[in-house]
Amino acid sequence: MKTQKATVKDLLQSGDCNQEVEIRGWVRTKRGNKQVNFIALNDGSTINNIQIVVEMTNFPEEMMKKVTTGAAIYVKGLLVESAGSGQSHEIQAKELVVLGEADPEKYPIQPKKHSLEFLRDVAHLRFRTNIFGAVFRIRHAMAFAIHQYFNDHGFYYLHTPLITASDCEGAGETFRVTTLDPKNPPLDEKGEVDFKQDFFGKATNLTVSGQLEGELGAMALGKIYTFGPTFRAENSNTTRHLSEFWMIEPEMAFYDLEDNMDLAEDFLKYLIRYALEHCMDDLKFLSARLQEEEKNKKAEDRSMELIEKLNFVLTHSFERVSYTEAVEILMNSKQNKNGKFQYPVSGWGVDLQSEHERYLVEKHFKKPVILTGYPKEIKAFYMKQNPDGKTVAAMDVLFPQIGEIIGGSQREENYDKLVNRMKEVGISTESMSYYLDTRRFGSAVHSGFGLGFERLLLFVTGMGNIRDVIPFPRTPKNAEF
Amino acid sequence: MKTQKATVKDLLQSGDCNQEVEIRGWVRTKRGNKQVNFIALNDGSTINNIQIVVEMTNFPEEMMKKVTTGAAIYVKGLLVESAGSGQSHEIQAKELVVLGEADPEKYPIQPKKHSLEFLRDVAHLRFRTNIFGAVFRIRHAMAFAIHQYFNDHGFYYLHTPLITASDCEGAGETFRVTTLDPKNPPLDEKGEVDFKQDFFGKATNLTVSGQLEGELGAMALGKIYTFGPTFRAENSNTTRHLSEFWMIEPEMAFYDLEDNMDLAEDFLKYLIRYALEHCMDDLKFLSARLQEEEKNKKAEDRSMELIEKLNFVLTHSFERVSYTEAVEILMNSKQNKNGKFQYPVSGWGVDLQSEHERYLVEKHFKKPVILTGYPKEIKAFYMKQNPDGKTVAAMDVLFPQIGEIIGGSQREENYDKLVNRMKEVGISTESMSYYLDTRRFGSAVHSGFGLGFERLLLFVTGMGNIRDVIPFPRTPKNAEF
Repeated sequence: MKTQKATVKDLLQSGDCNQEVEIRGWVRTKRGNKQVNFIALNDGSTINNIQIVVEMTNFPEEMMKKVTTGAAIYVKGLLVESAGSGQSHEIQAKELVVLGEADPEKYPIQPKKHSLEFLRDVAHLRFRTNIFGAVFRIRHAMAFAIHQYFNDHGFYYLHTPLITASDCEGAGETFRVTTLDPKNPPLDEKGEVDFKQDFFGKATNLTVSGQLEGELGAMALGKIYTFGPTFRAENSNTTRHLSEFWMIEPEMAFYDLEDNMDLAEDFLKYLIRYALEHCMDDLKFLSARLQEEEKNKKAEDRSMELIEKLNFVLTHSFERVSYTEAVEILMNSKQNKNGKFQYPVSGWGVDLQSEHERYLVEKHFKKPVILTGYPKEIKAFYMKQNPDGKTVAAMDVLFPQIGEIIGGSQREENYDKLVNRMKEVGISTESMSYYLDTRRFGSAVHSGFGLGFERLLLFVTGMGNIRDVIPFPRTPKNAEF
Repeated sequence: MKTQKATVKDLLQSGDCNQEVEIRGWVRTKRGNKQVNFIALNDGSTINNIQIVVEMTNFPEEMMKKVTTGAAIYVKGLLVESAGSGQSHEIQAKELVVLGEADPEKYPIQPKKHSLEFLRDVAHLRFRTNIFGAVFRIRHAMAFAIHQYFNDHGFYYLHTPLITASDCEGAGETFRVTTLDPKNPPLDEKGEVDFKQDFFGKATNLTVSGQLEGELGAMALGKIYTFGPTFRAENSNTTRHLSEFWMIEPEMAFYDLEDNMDLAEDFLKYLIRYALEHCMDDLKFLSARLQEEEKNKKAEDRSMELIEKLNFVLTHSFERVSYTEAVEILMNSKQNKNGKFQYPVSGWGVDLQSEHERYLVEKHFKKPVILTGYPKEIKAFYMKQNPDGKTVAAMDVLFPQIGEIIGGSQREENYDKLVNRMKEVGISTESMSYYLDTRRFGSAVHSGFGLGFERLLLFVTGMGNIRDVIPFPRTPKNAEF
C-alpha cells in the first residue's frame, strides 16, 4: 500500500522541516499583498490551519484570484519553521493547483461570524466551520472512547433492532414503519387497518430503547452494551429534544445497583478524561467561543468555563444520595421557599426537573450526584422493587449544566414481582413472553443504564442546542439533507 | 471503585492458583455421581467453560437437583490446576448458591444439538449456545476493530441520519416512517395523502445508505466513516438478505480510485488479522462445526476450512482486474461454455452474479479480486465517469465464498458531468441541491466504499445464513423480539 497522504495535523506535528511536502485542503482565508500571499489551509484533520506562503511572482494572477475562502487547493512546497507568530510550521509554495473553486458571491460560509441558526440551515456545509469541525471531531472522539472503554472492560457490543413490534417503556410516542399503501391501506373484516399485510406481518415502529433486547444479551454474554440510534415521535421543539438520537445502553449480568453506580461513574470519568487528553485544541476553541458568548450574560447566569467544568466532574467523587433525601433538601432550600423554582417541589413523589437536578449539583453538593431509590410510580416497570414497597432501585446521574446525564437501575429479576408490576401498569405479559424468559430460566441480579450520546456531547462541547451536536438533526417538521 | 467481578475468562487466563475466587454464570452441563459432581460453568465472557468440582456431601441434595442446564449459580471456592484433561483450571466449590433455576422440562436450550432454524425461533435465548456466543463475540470484535482501524488512520466517525426524505441511489425500496393516522390519513386538495401534516412535514423513509451525507462530511473533515443501520424493504426471503442491516461507509476527500483500493485491501486485511489474533477460540469452534457440516457435502462443494480461508485473504495481494477483462475470462471459461453458470455470461455489459465473482476468485485467480471500470449503466449515478464514456471508476472487492464484499467508487467531482448524469437517470437535481453544493464549492477528487457488516461476518464466522450473524434479524413477515 502507498504511504497515506499527509494531513495538516501530520505536518503540524511533524518535526521534519525543510522537506518537500504535498497537502490538499480548503482555503479558510487568504491575506497579503502584491508580493506575497498567506493562505490559511484546513483539511478537517485538526482545527489548526497550516499557513501557505505564496510568492506572487511565481504564480499566475488569474489563478490566485480563484484561491478564495472555501476553494479546494493542492500545494507542493517546502515545510519550514514559521517566522510568524501563532503557528509552528508553514509551507513555501512551489506548486499550487485550484482543485475546486468557491465563488465568493455564492458560497455561504464566508470568513465572518455566522449565527448557529444560519449554520443549521446549511448543515451540509457547517462541517467546514471551526466550531462544527471541533464539535464533530469531539463527537468522534467520544464515540471511540465509548467503544474502547467497553472493549477494555470485557463488554460485547450488541446491535439491538431498530424496527420493533414492542414499545419498551410503554412510554414514548413512536414512529410507525410501514410499506402499506398510505392512502388506501388494506382493511380487515372489522374495517381496521390490516397490519398482517404490512411488510413484517404486524404493526411495527422505530425503537425507543434497546434495553429489553440488551437484557437478553447480558443474560448470556454477561456484559453487553448497545450504541445506536433511538427515536421519539414527541412533538417537542426544544433545545434538548431530537426525534432521532444516539443512545448507549450497557447491561450487566450479576451487577447490583452499587456495581451499576460504580460503572457509571468510572465510565463518565473515563470519557471526560479522554476528551481532555485527545481533544484539547478543539476544547480550547469551544471554551473561548463560550466565554465570548457568556460575556453578555449576568454573572449569576454564567456557566463554568468549559475545561474547568470537565475537570470538576473528573476530580469529584459523585455524591450518592437517595431521592427521599434529595426531596427534603429541595423542599428546605431557599430557592423553593422563595418560589424561585419554575416547578415548586411540593413533596415526596414529585418527578424532579432539570432545575432541581442542577440545584443539587451546582448549589447544594457542588459535585456530580447520583440519586437512587425513586418512587416506583415515576419509573419504568422493569426496575427492581425495593423492600419498602414504595421505591425502586433506580439511579440517575446528575451533572452541572444539563441535569440528568444517565438514567439506570437494577432490574427486577424476580419473575412474580415483575409480572405483577407489568399487570399493574398494564403491559401485556403475553407479548413480552420472550423478555420474561430471562426471569424464567437462569435469572440473576442484573443492572444497566442509558446515556444519551447527544446529552453527553452538550456537556463536553458546551454547546447549548442539541441540534448542534448531531450532524443532521431530525426534529418536528424537519428532516432536511 | 470496587474491583470488577472476575469472569470465567479472567480465571482461565489467570496463573494464580490456590486462591479463593468467586464466580457467577450459567450451567452448561452437570455430570458426576453420588460422591462428586462436575459443573461446566459459562458466563459468556469466553466460549470456554470453567469446571466446578462439587463434593456432594458438602451440599444439600435438594439444592444440587436445581443445578441444571441453564440455571444461574454463584460459586465460591478454591481455584486449582485441573487434574482432568481439556481444562487448565477448575474450582473446588466451598459455597454454591442457585440464583435462578431453569426447569429442564421447559427450558428450550438443552445440552444437545439444536438446529439453527430452531434457535432462530428462540433468538432471545440462542446467545446461550456455544455457536451463537462465538458468533456474537466475533461480531463485537469486528465492530471494535473497525472503529480502531479508522480511528488509528485519522478518520472521523459520522452519524448520518436514519430517517431521511431522500433515497440515495433511487434504487432500493424503502420503509415509510410516519405518524399519520394509518386508517384515515389527512388528504390534500387533490385527494392525495397530505404528507405536509406528517411528523416531518413531508414523506420520509428509512435510509438505504449514508453515503451522500458521508460525502458532505468528507468534503470538510477529510476522512470520515459511517457505521450504522441501513434498511431495504425488498421482499427477498434468502440467506443473504436482511431488511435491517449494518453498513460501514468510509468516504475520503482527495482519494482517487487507487487510494480507495489500497484502503479497502488494507482495511479488510486488518479486520481478518484482528479476528485471527483476538478470536481464535471462537474461530476454532466455528471451524470444527463447519467441518462437521461439510462432511455431508460432495468434495467439490466443500468450502475451504475457516481459518485457512481467513489466511488465504491475508496472505494474497488482491488481484486488480478490469470488468472488461473479467467478462472476457468468464466468457472464455469452461464453466460458461459448458453452461455450468446459472446465469450465462453473454457479453460486455452484463451485471455479474455471485457465481461469476466466486469463479474469478476461487477458480481463476485463486486470490481476492478487485474489479474496476464497470459499465456506467449498471452502477450508481454518482460514480466518476471514465474518459471512455462507457465505464465508471467503480470498484468491487470479491472474496471467496461470498463474492462481493465491498462496493465502492471514486465519485464524480465535476459539477456538470454529475448534473448531466442525474438528468439522464431521472434524479431530481433540485431536491439534491445540498449534495451538489459539494461540487459547487471547493470540489475535489474523492472516493469511498461500502462494506455490509453482516456480509463480512458471514465470511469471518463461516455461517451460511445472514439471519445467524445479527442478533435479532428483520426479514419479510418477521420482526420478533
